[in-house]
Amino acid sequence: MCEAVLDESITGRAKRAGHIDIRYHHIRYYSEDKHRRTDDSPYGGGSGMVMQAEPLAACLDAVLATFDTRPRVIYLSPQGQVLTQKKVVALSKLSGIILVCGHYEGVDQRFLDTYIDEELSIGDYVLTGGEIAAMVVTDAVARLCDGVLRDTSSYTEESHYNGLLEHPHYTRPAIWRGMAVPEVLLNGHHAHIEAWRRQKSLENTYYKRPDLLENAPLTEADHQYLAELRSKDGKESQALGYAEQDLST
Amino acid sequence: MCEAVLDESITGRAKRAGHIDIRYHHIRYYSEDKHRRTDDSPYGGGSGMVMQAEPLAACLDAVLATFDTRPRVIYLSPQGQVLTQKKVVALSKLSGIILVCGHYEGVDQRFLDTYIDEELSIGDYVLTGGEIAAMVVTDAVARLCDGVLRDTSSYTEESHYNGLLEHPHYTRPAIWRGMAVPEVLLNGHHAHIEAWRRQKSLENTYYKRPDLLENAPLTEADHQYLAELRSKDGKESQALGYAEQDLST
Repeated sequence: MCEAVLDESITGRAKRAGHIDIRYHHIRYYSEDKHRRTDDSPYGGGSGMVMQAEPLAACLDAVLATFDTRPRVIYLSPQGQVLTQKKVVALSKLSGIILVCGHYEGVDQRFLDTYIDEELSIGDYVLTGGEIAAMVVTDAVARLCDGVLRDTSSYTEESHYNGLLEHPHYTRPAIWRGMAVPEVLLNGHHAHIEAWRRQKSLENTYYKRPDLLENAPLTEADHQYLAELRSKDGKESQALGYAEQDLST
Repeated sequence: MCEAVLDESITGRAKRAGHIDIRYHHIRYYSEDKHRRTDDSPYGGGSGMVMQAEPLAACLDAVLATFDTRPRVIYLSPQGQVLTQKKVVALSKLSGIILVCGHYEGVDQRFLDTYIDEELSIGDYVLTGGEIAAMVVTDAVARLCDGVLRDTSSYTEESHYNGLLEHPHYTRPAIWRGMAVPEVLLNGHHAHIEAWRRQKSLENTYYKRPDLLENAPLTEADHQYLAELRSKDGKESQALGYAEQDLST
């Protein structure tokens, strides 16, 4: 399942080119049970099943033995530290990471206490298992590794990299269904385009994720523009549309 | 790529049983270009490519025509509202959702302005495309739909459902590598087990995600236990281990 995703697309290309290595290990193969069971019912009762410590430990021991230096062992769990782009950058600098995917109700705590360096969550919601979360971490981290993206400026300009959301994008045709591309993008004046994009980036962040502005590195011009936005606020936020829409409506 | 994941596992089983329906649409098939191109370079310059409005609009028009009532159209984007379990619950009550996956640098803003009801982000980090984010949303939402999980109590007890992180789990053997299962789970006294689990759930939340306690519904007994934890804090937080570990160390 992970292979079908990560061996495709950008991560797969990077793997084949030798920029990154991704390996998949099936815990079931490390079960000593004749039916290759890896789960059992929870002590103390309750619904669902719990993954047993021994097959996980046997699998992890085998994988760890293939590394010269111990990689960081991360358990994907709704209980973990919540992933951010800052964390992704830090993970991309490690030489190796092992992502342990739980399933069912959870994993025997004694395995976690013994082996896990860190618990990581991709967000405050619950998935059926750790695999999709592992794909999220792998994709986010891999794209920052050397040689993976063709052009490193493609991530220095994007949302969350500089603490702001990105400016809007436009491509051909210049008029689509009666809607024109903003004039400034067509006249080729580089400094004007840069200034417009920075302002739109500030606007997006101000209206959609004002919390991000607290930690974003801002220039004097940025602060001035934000003050302008604040002063004309009432009207603008009504015109915004979907970003403030309530799901219940 | 999405099919390989979502048609497997719990979502695939639920789809085959008719509890949910998941369909995949390839935007490329809606391109009028002879090479089925769907992207072009951005107006105003810059690295990367931008997805054109027309193939996306043509695809979405075709998909919308298959619905009797218009489903909510969600664009997966780092600019969106950040997904939480509360949002997952709300989405699980909708009759239909269309998840639009962007790629490259982004999507022509005129398409977004015309078609998108809502932008949604799975977290404050950047992925190579919207597909893995769509899998996250689909998996999280699908498992709350009627008939998908065999036992609905498996999600009423888990992390984030009641605003707290979950208690630890243990399964056989009773002693693993010298480590015993907590005594209380072995004696079969239901009320003691429930009390222990609630306390461990409070402890996990208190040490790992204290921010969640602000909005969690807590009983008088919960508040008393948290007060106890706070009073013996200094020692406990040192004994915690990995949850507070800094990645740079």
